[in-house]
Amino acid sequence: MSGREFFTARTVAEARSGFRPAHRTTVRTVPLAEALHRVPAGPVPATAALPGFDRSTVDGFAVRAADTFGASDGLPSYLDLLGAVRMGAAPEVAVQPGGCVAVPTGAALPPGADAVVMVEYTAETMPGTIEVTRPVAAGAGLVRADEDVAAGAALVPGGRPLRAAELGLLAAAGVTEVTVHTRPRVAIVSTGDEVVPPDTATLRPGQVRDATASALAGLVADAGGTPVRAGIVPDEPGALKEALGGVLAGDLGGPVDLVVVSAGSSVGVRDETTGAVAALGDVWCHGLAIKPGKPTLLAECEGVPVVGLPGNPLSALVVFRLVGVPLVWSLAGCPQPPPEPTTRARLSRNLASAAGRLDVVQVRLAAGPAGTTAGSTAEPLFGPSALLSVLTRADGYLVIPEPATGLAGGTEVEVVLYR
Amino acid sequence: MSGREFFTARTVAEARSGFRPAHRTTVRTVPLAEALHRVPAGPVPATAALPGFDRSTVDGFAVRAADTFGASDGLPSYLDLLGAVRMGAAPEVAVQPGGCVAVPTGAALPPGADAVVMVEYTAETMPGTIEVTRPVAAGAGLVRADEDVAAGAALVPGGRPLRAAELGLLAAAGVTEVTVHTRPRVAIVSTGDEVVPPDTATLRPGQVRDATASALAGLVADAGGTPVRAGIVPDEPGALKEALGGVLAGDLGGPVDLVVVSAGSSVGVRDETTGAVAALGDVWCHGLAIKPGKPTLLAECEGVPVVGLPGNPLSALVVFRLVGVPLVWSLAGCPQPPPEPTTRARLSRNLASAAGRLDVVQVRLAAGPAGTTAGSTAEPLFGPSALLSVLTRADGYLVIPEPATGLAGGTEVEVVLYR
Repeated sequence: MSGREFFTARTVAEARSGFRPAHRTTVRTVPLAEALHRVPAGPVPATAALPGFDRSTVDGFAVRAADTFGASDGLPSYLDLLGAVRMGAAPEVAVQPGGCVAVPTGAALPPGADAVVMVEYTAETMPGTIEVTRPVAAGAGLVRADEDVAAGAALVPGGRPLRAAELGLLAAAGVTEVTVHTRPRVAIVSTGDEVVPPDTATLRPGQVRDATASALAGLVADAGGTPVRAGIVPDEPGALKEALGGVLAGDLGGPVDLVVVSAGSSVGVRDETTGAVAALGDVWCHGLAIKPGKPTLLAECEGVPVVGLPGNPLSALVVFRLVGVPLVWSLAGCPQPPPEPTTRARLSRNLASAAGRLDVVQVRLAAGPAGTTAGSTAEPLFGPSALLSVLTRADGYLVIPEPATGLAGGTEVEVVLYR
Repeated sequence: MSGREFFTARTVAEARSGFRPAHRTTVRTVPLAEALHRVPAGPVPATAALPGFDRSTVDGFAVRAADTFGASDGLPSYLDLLGAVRMGAAPEVAVQPGGCVAVPTGAALPPGADAVVMVEYTAETMPGTIEVTRPVAAGAGLVRADEDVAAGAALVPGGRPLRAAELGLLAAAGVTEVTVHTRPRVAIVSTGDEVVPPDTATLRPGQVRDATASALAGLVADAGGTPVRAGIVPDEPGALKEALGGVLAGDLGGPVDLVVVSAGSSVGVRDETTGAVAALGDVWCHGLAIKPGKPTLLAECEGVPVVGLPGNPLSALVVFRLVGVPLVWSLAGCPQPPPEPTTRARLSRNLASAAGRLDVVQVRLAAGPAGTTAGSTAEPLFGPSALLSVLTRADGYLVIPEPATGLAGGTEVEVVLYR
């Protein structure tokens, strides 16, 4: 233990904007049913217009709009009923001047018609004659053949995870497969002589089960990645370097796109981690201006980004959310992670912070009047970062930005909610 | 086409609070690695305290706090270095009065010690003697054996989807399997003579590919359910009743927990849907005070909730988000769906609404100054609800609540963001 720490420290903002490895996962074509939240490799164009035919949006009668001009309850237009369009079928009859054709919502507009009068403004007073009591403008009661999507237009953009509604639009356009980035394979390496697998029934004094790897696997999956567990590496000189070398060489069943090391928490072990990573690639920073989470290492080894996390699970998870999750998305071709749930709340008490450092504070929300979230209060949860339960008891976290020296009680804050 | 609609109409709030089928999915024990966002059947208790031993949170020296009282740079305390604790190992030496033991962060506190002095406030001026220049209080620099979780306390609550950090805490406690509700199996039944499968290469005039089923499958998956496609039922008398009967009888490879019918959009077809559902069970409401989405049917058939959605994909998806998604969560034992991403924005223009009706308005966000979301503007997207692209072009939606008759331009609104 040297007792002193020397960091190439960066701010979280610098890490998020500056540590952007060029590596992207390969692309692969997957069925639409497996494409939710996957990132398309590029925009997907429509090969034909949608809906592809002029389509009624109401139950009523297809007409020539000019035939209804001036129609009113007192002076209706009388139109000859020439036939009806069936759902899903091509119209078999055209609308002639002075005539009309019955159409249900969603049916094709017959030739000759330029509007649809809603059934509510009509009556069949004599068999074969429709009385229209409201005028319609051309284009009323229908969507044009290319109004949903024009041929050649993008159905969905590239680089943004596919949303449920987008799967619908792709299906509507007959797109049943999408070329998407493969899920980033994220190697999770645990280190520490004190760390034992979660299935260890009984702990000896000094031993702890590996909490970080399971929680990281969850965050990786949420970010669209595939966690790959690399096990627990002991604190022996050379052991981590050997393990990392194996991971980079494909020992985990193939190449990985990101390596996350939950490093030992003591200074000596951190130095060992830095040494192992530096021996295999370039260290981008060693230390982030964040609390908790300062002893974070960012590096690139053989084109693969490596994130060395602090030893405490709480600190490790805070940092991975802020720095690792955007990286996983970025590796999958998505430059901007999808939005996270947030809420506004009033801070229950003063919070101190050092200028130049991002503070991440776990909070519980106390509901406002009548259980609304609108008037809710954010209660900071304190405790050593060795306590994972501080994180699991929290409803979310707030961030005190770098320039601030604290936040006053009563301030309205944005709380990022866990889900 | 009758031209008139008779509804047993309800508000969305009534539907969300009142339409709560008692049915819950069964429970099953799954490995921790598959438990993310699954709903535990009940609280999971800790069988032993965590971390299980008094644990150092700093690199330093375990001491008796009383031996450091009054220590300062000018008048240090001198303590005999009695040994060191290794990571992951039981301490082999106790702290005697006037002595200290070196401990790394995360190691077990040796017997006899009640505090840890950070290495920063010490020096080994002579071999075997540690100079302490700051006093520590009892309990400083450590967490107690039960400080993370006490034996018997709940590690996670029941009824709330498991979060990433909770997987970590469960792993730390040696819980490698969790008993969770099985994923609700949600049958998706499409109807309509005009509706053809998404893999139909060329459409005849009047035909549309099934967009709703693919989008619904995405929303169901997001809500933790398993979508099961039941195909497309034609608009023939009796066909839907027969199809629903088969779904309820287990034709889709076993029982289902929820049936969603994307009903035809014309009045006549809606009546047919109501008739089919009424023949098999009890209709709870036919019509919701929501725009778009009014022609929504809620029913229970043989204990299984049935949601009949409007024929337009946009309307169907709006209603399913508000009414169906909470149902899916509830069926899995989660009374309150997890939070969704939201943001605040200023409305770009006036919006009208009828009192007594919930209006759901799709919006695009225009970024505020310097790309911040804080000052962003919500631009309503208009267009017939027949246009699915209105939904896919939107960044999210806002809700005009039932009592309001509209919202004034410039009002700050909460936008639920799509992801």
